[in-house]
Amino acid sequence: MPKKRAGPKWRSGCPLNASVEMLGDRWSLLILRDMMLRGYSHFHEFLQSTEKIATNILADRLRRLEHYGIVTSREDSGDGRKRIYSLTPKGIDLAPVLTEMVLWAARHEDVGNQPLVRLMRAGKDQFNANIHRHWTEKHGASNS
Amino acid sequence: MPKKRAGPKWRSGCPLNASVEMLGDRWSLLILRDMMLRGYSHFHEFLQSTEKIATNILADRLRRLEHYGIVTSREDSGDGRKRIYSLTPKGIDLAPVLTEMVLWAARHEDVGNQPLVRLMRAGKDQFNANIHRHWTEKHGASNS
Repeated sequence: MPKKRAGPKWRSGCPLNASVEMLGDRWSLLILRDMMLRGYSHFHEFLQSTEKIATNILADRLRRLEHYGIVTSREDSGDGRKRIYSLTPKGIDLAPVLTEMVLWAARHEDVGNQPLVRLMRAGKDQFNANIHRHWTEKHGASNS
Repeated sequence: MPKKRAGPKWRSGCPLNASVEMLGDRWSLLILRDMMLRGYSHFHEFLQSTEKIATNILADRLRRLEHYGIVTSREDSGDGRKRIYSLTPKGIDLAPVLTEMVLWAARHEDVGNQPLVRLMRAGKDQFNANIHRHWTEKHGASNS
């Protein structure tokens, strides 16, 4: 995949704006969670998450995430009608963003998944490093 | 303001989901940036940002941010027709989320505001602590 492509035009030069133009949508962040923390890689897996994403929204968001180079996909060698989705290096680099969002919600709202929250609180840098290491082991050094 | 209110019902117990239900919208995050980094507090100030938020979207997002206890507002004593918006403790606690989003965009995209990026890279914990200290000085210990 070429590193440089015709860049998207942002509404401003602000780095936060670039970030929210790529991510500022609740469903995109939930798809990334499912890939990062649950290891989901197939279309039908994302549909099974508790938040009940609609098929057309899922297809659209996966397309957007691929467009921005956050997600990549390839044909499933076992079933050519299916695609396998995985995070790119740019995608796995979002771990600290997701971690801070989890920690923020856990500080201010009554939320579930306390084991995850405890793990992050015990050491968020370590948590993010583990996510990255797990992803590198799975995808090989060629992707990192 | 009472601390407990009839809690919003999330689509799932996942803390990331709670976070994206409150924040998963590009405009909300830009409004928070304008309050946190630029000190904006008046409706007309937010309208002047480069990204050109529409009046009706701004009004809606400020209402949502108040609903979730992220932003609070009061009457402007100098002009009773105007309101002054400020971040709550829950709102200022979002600094690490915004910082990670800026750093991520700056790692992977060609973006502006490099002085801000350099400041965050030099020490993000220090950067976030400074944001919090500045906010505490402005709003007084009663809010923190």
